[in-house]
Amino acid sequence: MANLKIGVVGCGRIGKLHINNLLNSVTGVTVAAVADPMMDKSGAREWLAERGITNATTDFMEVVNNPEIDVVFVCSSTDTHCDVSMAAVQAGKHVFCEKPIDYNVEKINKLLALVEEKGVKFQVGFNRRFDHNHKAVADAVKNGTIGDPHIVIVSSRDPEPPPASYVAVSGGIFYDMMIHDFDMVRYVTGSEAVEVSAVGACLVNPNLQEESGIPDVDTAVVTMKMANGCIAVINNSRQAVYGYDQRVEAFGSKGMASDGNDLLNTTTITTVDGAHSEKPLWFFLERYNQAFIEQVRSFVDSIVNDKPVAVGAVDGLRPVLMAQAATESCRNGGAWVKVD
Amino acid sequence: MANLKIGVVGCGRIGKLHINNLLNSVTGVTVAAVADPMMDKSGAREWLAERGITNATTDFMEVVNNPEIDVVFVCSSTDTHCDVSMAAVQAGKHVFCEKPIDYNVEKINKLLALVEEKGVKFQVGFNRRFDHNHKAVADAVKNGTIGDPHIVIVSSRDPEPPPASYVAVSGGIFYDMMIHDFDMVRYVTGSEAVEVSAVGACLVNPNLQEESGIPDVDTAVVTMKMANGCIAVINNSRQAVYGYDQRVEAFGSKGMASDGNDLLNTTTITTVDGAHSEKPLWFFLERYNQAFIEQVRSFVDSIVNDKPVAVGAVDGLRPVLMAQAATESCRNGGAWVKVD
Amino acid sequence: MANLKIGVVGCGRIGKLHINNLLNSVTGVTVAAVADPMMDKSGAREWLAERGITNATTDFMEVVNNPEIDVVFVCSSTDTHCDVSMAAVQAGKHVFCEKPIDYNVEKINKLLALVEEKGVKFQVGFNRRFDHNHKAVADAVKNGTIGDPHIVIVSSRDPEPPPASYVAVSGGIFYDMMIHDFDMVRYVTGSEAVEVSAVGACLVNPNLQEESGIPDVDTAVVTMKMANGCIAVINNSRQAVYGYDQRVEAFGSKGMASDGNDLLNTTTITTVDGAHSEKPLWFFLERYNQAFIEQVRSFVDSIVNDKPVAVGAVDGLRPVLMAQAATESCRNGGAWVKVD
Amino acid sequence: MANLKIGVVGCGRIGKLHINNLLNSVTGVTVAAVADPMMDKSGAREWLAERGITNATTDFMEVVNNPEIDVVFVCSSTDTHCDVSMAAVQAGKHVFCEKPIDYNVEKINKLLALVEEKGVKFQVGFNRRFDHNHKAVADAVKNGTIGDPHIVIVSSRDPEPPPASYVAVSGGIFYDMMIHDFDMVRYVTGSEAVEVSAVGACLVNPNLQEESGIPDVDTAVVTMKMANGCIAVINNSRQAVYGYDQRVEAFGSKGMASDGNDLLNTTTITTVDGAHSEKPLWFFLERYNQAFIEQVRSFVDSIVNDKPVAVGAVDGLRPVLMAQAATESCRNGGAWVKVD
Repeated sequence: MANLKIGVVGCGRIGKLHINNLLNSVTGVTVAAVADPMMDKSGAREWLAERGITNATTDFMEVVNNPEIDVVFVCSSTDTHCDVSMAAVQAGKHVFCEKPIDYNVEKINKLLALVEEKGVKFQVGFNRRFDHNHKAVADAVKNGTIGDPHIVIVSSRDPEPPPASYVAVSGGIFYDMMIHDFDMVRYVTGSEAVEVSAVGACLVNPNLQEESGIPDVDTAVVTMKMANGCIAVINNSRQAVYGYDQRVEAFGSKGMASDGNDLLNTTTITTVDGAHSEKPLWFFLERYNQAFIEQVRSFVDSIVNDKPVAVGAVDGLRPVLMAQAATESCRNGGAWVKVD
Repeated sequence: MANLKIGVVGCGRIGKLHINNLLNSVTGVTVAAVADPMMDKSGAREWLAERGITNATTDFMEVVNNPEIDVVFVCSSTDTHCDVSMAAVQAGKHVFCEKPIDYNVEKINKLLALVEEKGVKFQVGFNRRFDHNHKAVADAVKNGTIGDPHIVIVSSRDPEPPPASYVAVSGGIFYDMMIHDFDMVRYVTGSEAVEVSAVGACLVNPNLQEESGIPDVDTAVVTMKMANGCIAVINNSRQAVYGYDQRVEAFGSKGMASDGNDLLNTTTITTVDGAHSEKPLWFFLERYNQAFIEQVRSFVDSIVNDKPVAVGAVDGLRPVLMAQAATESCRNGGAWVKVD
Repeated sequence: MANLKIGVVGCGRIGKLHINNLLNSVTGVTVAAVADPMMDKSGAREWLAERGITNATTDFMEVVNNPEIDVVFVCSSTDTHCDVSMAAVQAGKHVFCEKPIDYNVEKINKLLALVEEKGVKFQVGFNRRFDHNHKAVADAVKNGTIGDPHIVIVSSRDPEPPPASYVAVSGGIFYDMMIHDFDMVRYVTGSEAVEVSAVGACLVNPNLQEESGIPDVDTAVVTMKMANGCIAVINNSRQAVYGYDQRVEAFGSKGMASDGNDLLNTTTITTVDGAHSEKPLWFFLERYNQAFIEQVRSFVDSIVNDKPVAVGAVDGLRPVLMAQAATESCRNGGAWVKVD
Repeated sequence: MANLKIGVVGCGRIGKLHINNLLNSVTGVTVAAVADPMMDKSGAREWLAERGITNATTDFMEVVNNPEIDVVFVCSSTDTHCDVSMAAVQAGKHVFCEKPIDYNVEKINKLLALVEEKGVKFQVGFNRRFDHNHKAVADAVKNGTIGDPHIVIVSSRDPEPPPASYVAVSGGIFYDMMIHDFDMVRYVTGSEAVEVSAVGACLVNPNLQEESGIPDVDTAVVTMKMANGCIAVINNSRQAVYGYDQRVEAFGSKGMASDGNDLLNTTTITTVDGAHSEKPLWFFLERYNQAFIEQVRSFVDSIVNDKPVAVGAVDGLRPVLMAQAATESCRNGGAWVKVD
């Protein structure tokens, strides 16, 4: 049985998430080495030791150049995703790269070319494709159950806004948050956005732009004309006070597929005041817990059995192009912008 | 097109309900005469006049003997149901009789025999069989969709208890309230109860027995062994503070059919406190509004097109036998009692 | 007790609907006269006679000028709504006018002025405001339960497309179908649309434009910037094969209110194939049955008790302006168009 | 930080489940040793080695007498639960014992006395108390949200029947399957059963009694009079073809709390055929996955922080007494049997 040796670059929140999943929930893999520039200051070294991982370094190139390692997980800060991925692909490793690959389309294209050249597997971390609910919606389109898709609506709202300091370096809502939803639209419609119109406003925090120093919004609606004729709409809010709201509806010539949130429990309490039931799971760690595992299992399976990856490098590129167009549109009052 | 001339005996709450439905929602019928002993004291005469009904009398025999009348609706007080029905059948009228026909089995049997002899249509008012929800459950059994029924659970709870003075003359919860649920069990299982065990308690009003002067209960659970092997359970409460709770679940060899309450509206409001939705419709006038209409349409159809009635005289008898057995069981600590 | 004498102009489908409701479900009113140019050819005269209405004419001016009549219901063909209303208001009658008043803004404004001058009540037939589900969503906004509204999504889809011949004279989807949804957005957000972008396509019937001879679409998504900052989205399809799909979601600073369709029944059947439940009620006659009654009750109440009408003449005007802007936007590839 | 050394007796399906959970999902514990008589024949030794557990023996007394071990998990075959527990308690270990402790009341009582004498923690494996759904129902009763409980209904149905050979040694449906539901009734009502009536039938497999050689049933309904006046009903089926059906409803003086099954996903597909959604999770490993983890976390917490266990030895005894009474009742046609 194959035993893939995995090196992880980045041991922050998302790195730890993947390490725990690799240790506990994915078979046929070993976490062989981990790199993080803050390895010693952040307590990551101890955290790893508790899990029996002793090969821990501050220099990601040690992981990338480790000849025993088959696969590199790129979980470092967003601005380094592309460079670390380049280095790892160059070293002949398979790469799992957290989203987004980069905001610079040229850099992504260079990476795509290198992946192609090296013939390695490259998967980008659009974990929501592996969510049991969204997958069932996408399958209903793919299987023809709802016929040709005519209207797709993605509602995606975070439970609380990030600090303005985070927003300042996030690239803005379209790159930071809606990027997942752009991927979802591609996934569910099975088609590419041709033209995009974005409207946005600072309704959660009217002072967002001053506080963050960037012309960002916290509430946004994007409409897209898809190549297959379908019209897609995404709505985002940085703050749904009731918790993480993640729903997809696909309406087509033969019917509709729509999902609901996973709730804390199924219990309903009915009194003179009406019926009371639970809120959605709080945030992405809870809601997409199993999806994070499934995406890695899928990636491992694609390596071990030499299958195409479920979410390839081009799937990392297209949402960036959509975010680019949406950002431009939003700054121009919703003008329609072609997606490259 | 046929135009049935209908006489109504009893112009209280249920009589008025039927009259309004006959006027507004049933085609091919005319309300030709109405009798009520309180015609003048209760304001019924004026109420009828507003609806253009001028043949209003205090003597039900005038209605029964009116040669123009084809059909008699028996909506008088419960203790007169059987006698009025007898008279009307004797006069050759088709009869729609509110439930229960009577509590005396011998009297019911005499009526059954007379109905048979006279060859008229006789329907008893188990309106819940015409409810869109319960009907869909019963149909799923009848059509074999859920296979052989193994377990049937009827939950039936009123929004508020009647006054003790009403309970005193009601015959007790099994005759007054559960009678509908006994019919529901027969309707859904398509089988007869063989043996019954009833447990009950005064949990809503601990002083019920002193106040009413009868050994009644306000909370009851009845278990039944049905002739086809199915086990049926009914639970009743005189007070569900959240409103009329009327649900049926049929579990069988190939699946389950279960219904929910109709709600005031479908809107859900989700806040930091969770999700809030509406209560059931308040009571039987709201919940079974359409069922009352459908049952009369069905009865009219059976007369006009000479079809068997949907709920015949024997369907009026069997629940009384079940109520009799349940009452005896409950007074004997839940002992199993055979249904005659 | 007041008894309003009502004259109805137009005895087609919607006229008959109102007449039946006035007769059966609204108290304090009499249907005194009905006009329809097709009175004799369409069988309307007989239909009215069966309901005891004998004052039936082909000339609507007879109704308008009848001194006994207090209120005129304008249920004639769309192109005559405004003229009949003008005549009735001129004659000092209160007017209930089916939507839309007209497509010509100038004509509507003249009518508004005349209503003002004459001091009569004028209500326009946006019945959906009286739907129990949508009303609960709107109330949650109005009452502050969900805080300031940030995003409103109206999904509104018909069960089957009208014939091309109907589309040809309909004014197009934005005037004919989405007009109700424009009103819904105003009703739920409590604000006015400032700017509108509309995208549309012929996805249900690719030949719609040739067949109808007008540049219409059958699938449309409209985005609106509201005066209060809220972003609203409407999606329309001429064909939801599963039935009439009518849902509203309001998302705000303190939560979300959303409604679902009313279903044929609440029963769920669960087998090895999964859980199966019912479709929505088929079309507007079923879904908005009670709303049609409630709107007329509300109108009668506003006359009898001299209250402001719930949906006034200006509420008839604004959606037409929105439809105008949307039509222009759609024909210009989704360009943003200011609403006058 | 405490690090409890855990020894596991029994390395079959349930033993492996606990070992995996202890390794992956419970902090502050080490799996120090495992015993199983089939250690070498079943492949358990290799399975353990893959997880880094090398102290693996065929003799459970080696685990029980290991001075390094703090806690023993009793996951051996049912007939050995009590003896292994006795030995472990005697050796001063804390014990987590899978349900049922035993079917012999006298043996359980001896164990209870020894637990008391030794002052160790003893928890019995009624994992369903830790299910997010059922817990919310029980909490609604405990917190007074639904007032005094009047009627409790537990629906508990397995997806497929066990082989007759299993049934032959199972003790029958009341000991083997309903034992969990007896615990649920105690947990939710917060009261003890006083008297029990059980009816049952072989509806899933009419030949069950011949094939198994014991007078068992596969469909059963048990009614209970609880000490606090509440009436409780359990219904069991060995085969719900649509999957594991686990629902609890508590109805009381102030309202109702009821839960639903966890489904495979939340997606609904609506077509001309109606709305289709998913089945429940297949069986207990899926449905109670998280509950298995939570119960062990709770047990570890009670040891580390010296708190009372959530489900003590007496909670292991009472359901056995209820099963005993139900078995007797069922064999006597549903006669009421007092619970000791």
